Amino acid sequence: MNYFKMIESTMDEIRPLDDVAVEAAWNRIDNLTKPLGSLGMLEEISAKIAGIKGFIPNSLNKKNIIIMCSDNGVTEEAVSTCPQITTAIVTNNFTKGITGVNALAKFSHTDITVVDIGINQDLNNTQIINRKISYGTKNITKAAAMTKNQAVLAMVTGIEIVDGLCKQGYDILGTGEMGVGNTTTSSAVFKALSGLPTDLVVGKGSGLDNKQYENKKRVVEKALEVNNITEEDDVIDIISKVGGYDIAALCGCFIGAAKNRIPIVIDGFISSVAALCAYKMNSLVRDFMFPSHLSAEPGAIYIMEELKLEPMLNLKMRLGEGSGCPLAFDIINGALYAVNNMGSFEDANLHKSNYVDIRK
Amino acid sequence: MNYFKMIESTMDEIRPLDDVAVEAAWNRIDNLTKPLGSLGMLEEISAKIAGIKGFIPNSLNKKNIIIMCSDNGVTEEAVSTCPQITTAIVTNNFTKGITGVNALAKFSHTDITVVDIGINQDLNNTQIINRKISYGTKNITKAAAMTKNQAVLAMVTGIEIVDGLCKQGYDILGTGEMGVGNTTTSSAVFKALSGLPTDLVVGKGSGLDNKQYENKKRVVEKALEVNNITEEDDVIDIISKVGGYDIAALCGCFIGAAKNRIPIVIDGFISSVAALCAYKMNSLVRDFMFPSHLSAEPGAIYIMEELKLEPMLNLKMRLGEGSGCPLAFDIINGALYAVNNMGSFEDANLHKSNYVDIRK
Repeated sequence: MNYFKMIESTMDEIRPLDDVAVEAAWNRIDNLTKPLGSLGMLEEISAKIAGIKGFIPNSLNKKNIIIMCSDNGVTEEAVSTCPQITTAIVTNNFTKGITGVNALAKFSHTDITVVDIGINQDLNNTQIINRKISYGTKNITKAAAMTKNQAVLAMVTGIEIVDGLCKQGYDILGTGEMGVGNTTTSSAVFKALSGLPTDLVVGKGSGLDNKQYENKKRVVEKALEVNNITEEDDVIDIISKVGGYDIAALCGCFIGAAKNRIPIVIDGFISSVAALCAYKMNSLVRDFMFPSHLSAEPGAIYIMEELKLEPMLNLKMRLGEGSGCPLAFDIINGALYAVNNMGSFEDANLHKSNYVDIRK
Repeated sequence: MNYFKMIESTMDEIRPLDDVAVEAAWNRIDNLTKPLGSLGMLEEISAKIAGIKGFIPNSLNKKNIIIMCSDNGVTEEAVSTCPQITTAIVTNNFTKGITGVNALAKFSHTDITVVDIGINQDLNNTQIINRKISYGTKNITKAAAMTKNQAVLAMVTGIEIVDGLCKQGYDILGTGEMGVGNTTTSSAVFKALSGLPTDLVVGKGSGLDNKQYENKKRVVEKALEVNNITEEDDVIDIISKVGGYDIAALCGCFIGAAKNRIPIVIDGFISSVAALCAYKMNSLVRDFMFPSHLSAEPGAIYIMEELKLEPMLNLKMRLGEGSGCPLAFDIINGALYAVNNMGSFEDANLHKSNYVDIRK
């Protein structure tokens, strides 16, 4: 149970945003030559980064997306029309540079870190970090996905991966995943955390027909029932009962980012569920998160509401892999650059009162 | 009335998207290693660019934002708390590199083109293109903003500016504006075009109080009444009666972009109204437009619905100036890069059937 203590001690290291730096950031932002607030979320992003870093950096140059890859026993229940082996194939493909996240990461000069956190076969690929907890989880309609110890080990792994990247000097992180069946486990975890009706937490994925969708909803409900999910369950209970290694490890990444005071970007639905798990364990973690795009899964919007976060992109993406992160990195860097490089009212021959109440 | 003929002949030159290129683009996109459609709007953007250019370019490197600057006589009606001279000051500031659009344009390696299309004083700044139609429009609550001839001249100017930038080799354009009072004229034009209730087309700008907001709505209604706007009025009638030179010239930019087959990005509310004007004159123009972000003005969402376009960014920006365009250029280039650089199913050791129905 040593891992539990590691999580606890990590939690103790997390400090809130630096209020003084946030206030200084707003003072700067509100003296730039523009109507107050008119750069919208670009201003909020800059102020939040100031609270994390202590100042508004001109850019966050070294960028890395962590992709947690694992298999899910629940694929036995035909929740995905995709063969389970796709997890291993796509995970290998991340190292060939041909996937969606590869192309978008290359576009935005972002590195990727591929982690085998529980794929059901040995990949023997030196470009993949082998932190396999087991050869996939158990079928959540029949048993708990994993032991609590395994769940916490996956979380600790996420923290350690983030620790390592911070030591390498990365300035901002993204979160991604690959694992056939992981929208089902994510829906189950989200339902257990939120108590929302199944219709709101389970999506059709990319093209499940109505019959397959009804099955997926039944599977989620059965998983909660078989595993005897109750209101007393904490996040670790829930992830171990109906989650996946990817969710647990990404949850650890969010916690690790807060500990290391590094901004971390949320990608799609699975990543959002992991972010919610981390937030439920320690609400301070939320202040280090930046959602990229709103996933097309129906539950995504409820998670954002609960996190009180708003995605910056509206692209109807539903690829996962962390593919929303590279474009979000560019927006964040644009925000920082704007706030650092605009002139003040004085530079502009304007007074703040010229501007407060006008315009679009 | 020579300008009318120039508009007509420009309209005759506009051809639809290249269907063959669009189909070829979708064939490529649907053979990339990902669930069908999972890159969402990134796929749609790429296919549309293919329809414009005839193929999917790897990037659109040379980028330019056209900023149309002009004054509006309606500022006499206290529709803005900002002194009218702000138009001239900010227009000059565009050439000093200190404004919001300057910083964001520099971030995304974008040039800007500043046009005086009707500022109410002489700027004597060689970095500003002087195409002044007159020293500001008339007060639309008392008379027509401009003559029809002036409206069409402003449109022709927009077309000519675009022609010139295309000759200089620009690959993609953005649209921006500066002009105190131009949310009022834009609301008036949009109300005349749409017939929507005043509450839906007039916004509070950045901080009008309730009394000022009620006044702005009355001004818009009075402008339509005084100018005897009827259903028979065409776009040129409406712009000349209750619009502004910025709206007319940006409308010309959209038309010019379609003629020159160059993608053009919509910025905020004023730019969206100009885009709608161009669409109403020739619906083909729509296929060359890419909305950047959803303006915080309430009318913006209705314009997007009418244009059947969806913004890619959700940033609550309301600065104008074309400031939404640089970040949109980056998204568009990310889309093109992804579609050109991802592997195919064959590269990926996957078959399309592995993938069709799965995942987030």
